[in-house]
Amino acid sequence: MCDICVMTAVKDRMLSRRGFFAGAAGAGLAAAAGLTASAPRALAQGHTAVTDMTHELSADFPTFFGEQQFFWDQKFNFADHGFNLAEYRVNEHTGTHIDAPLHFSADGAAVNEIAVENLVAPLCVIDIAARAAEDADTTLTPDDIRAWIAAHGEIPQNACVALFSGWGEKASGPGFRNADAKGVQHYPGFHPEAAKMLIEETGAASIGSDTLSLDPGNSPDFATHYAWLPSGRFGIECLANLDRMPAVGATLVIGAPKHKGGTGGPARIFALV
Amino acid sequence: MCDICVMTAVKDRMLSRRGFFAGAAGAGLAAAAGLTASAPRALAQGHTAVTDMTHELSADFPTFFGEQQFFWDQKFNFADHGFNLAEYRVNEHTGTHIDAPLHFSADGAAVNEIAVENLVAPLCVIDIAARAAEDADTTLTPDDIRAWIAAHGEIPQNACVALFSGWGEKASGPGFRNADAKGVQHYPGFHPEAAKMLIEETGAASIGSDTLSLDPGNSPDFATHYAWLPSGRFGIECLANLDRMPAVGATLVIGAPKHKGGTGGPARIFALV
Repeated sequence: MCDICVMTAVKDRMLSRRGFFAGAAGAGLAAAAGLTASAPRALAQGHTAVTDMTHELSADFPTFFGEQQFFWDQKFNFADHGFNLAEYRVNEHTGTHIDAPLHFSADGAAVNEIAVENLVAPLCVIDIAARAAEDADTTLTPDDIRAWIAAHGEIPQNACVALFSGWGEKASGPGFRNADAKGVQHYPGFHPEAAKMLIEETGAASIGSDTLSLDPGNSPDFATHYAWLPSGRFGIECLANLDRMPAVGATLVIGAPKHKGGTGGPARIFALV
Repeated sequence: MCDICVMTAVKDRMLSRRGFFAGAAGAGLAAAAGLTASAPRALAQGHTAVTDMTHELSADFPTFFGEQQFFWDQKFNFADHGFNLAEYRVNEHTGTHIDAPLHFSADGAAVNEIAVENLVAPLCVIDIAARAAEDADTTLTPDDIRAWIAAHGEIPQNACVALFSGWGEKASGPGFRNADAKGVQHYPGFHPEAAKMLIEETGAASIGSDTLSLDPGNSPDFATHYAWLPSGRFGIECLANLDRMPAVGATLVIGAPKHKGGTGGPARIFALV
């Protein structure tokens, strides 16, 4: 199936799915509502707010390869068995997810081997959204990092440096992959020289992007993946809600999966502000 | 374990981890060493230590049903393709995982519908390990909750109330399921009356156990699941490292998966102390 055919099929499926869920809204959500009724409080020492940086994962979430990568299969249902239970099958690089060093290296750390101390990280947000709105192929460059440092100070040890392109809000449609007639994707990413600069000049432990890849969508060679991951650092792709984050000051808690030998996997990521 | 003991344990682990990385000769690990060599720092405002409350997930992790529930399938490998990538298939109730309200109700909240505010929770640890060492079928009762409150004060709003039985260290062997000749499992769980008390008298949003089930292993009827989950609250099973937590004072960050309509799923869970 060609990319455009895939995109059309995905779009049709999403539209019908939305209709289904709109009609089904009700009883199930009522219980959830009860959980949100508490008064504001301190979430953890020094923090007063938590933001979910994770996109909802479903069969139609856009993927780098353009094909479905998440499959949910109900095995038991409440009416017949008294409880609900499902299995799911997922490509490790689907939805808001981690790229472990092993993803692009022969023997780098697997996702279960990432140091826990690097999964609670000062978040540095570098905003290139205005440029990305004009040019989907723009990249985050060393100049952007220098400008951020000039404005906000040094990048903290163990930081996660995140690229905010504005792409997060496109995640429900074909604009997220933004593939052209030849199948080439168009969205921003980190320039490989930016990755090298972060390795050589900072103590950043991870980089994150609100797009489908650490590299720009039109990269022919995954140069940023090859620069960053073999250094023992990890990446995050498809981050949500970066538009709600300050440039500096939030703490990212990165709920990476912990399966043995994994090259990455869907993650639950929060920001404490 | 007291606060100071916890901090010492964390410090020891960090030092041994540094030693491991310093001794590793591989290029990938050398870079990783740079990531762990930072000076002690505040992880997040007010927190100085993070503890991983998650067991490593693999094909042989013990399961409630006793059969393999995690399957990892490598699709690309570095030697042949220049990168590593796998798919995995998993039963939603495997490893350290969430029970969403939907797991034991007709239309309760799915795992993606749990309020984010309830995923950053004050952790209350109720220690019944001494009793569990004598009797694997013991349960956490209303009396245990009353004794905890008398010692530590009221259970905070949105808390996660965790049962510490000492079962976490058995997770690598058959003692975790502890099935007898008839196939009946033997490990502690919450008494259903304890679940009802937490619902009626506290603002706890979740309960967690270091065993395979919220119910004791020999439960014939899942009475605790049926008491707790349909109330709109969620559960955590197979919590790790509860022995390293203070009775009160830690903040649990619960990285539940966020797939649409899920009845639960493997989670990455941290405690900030």
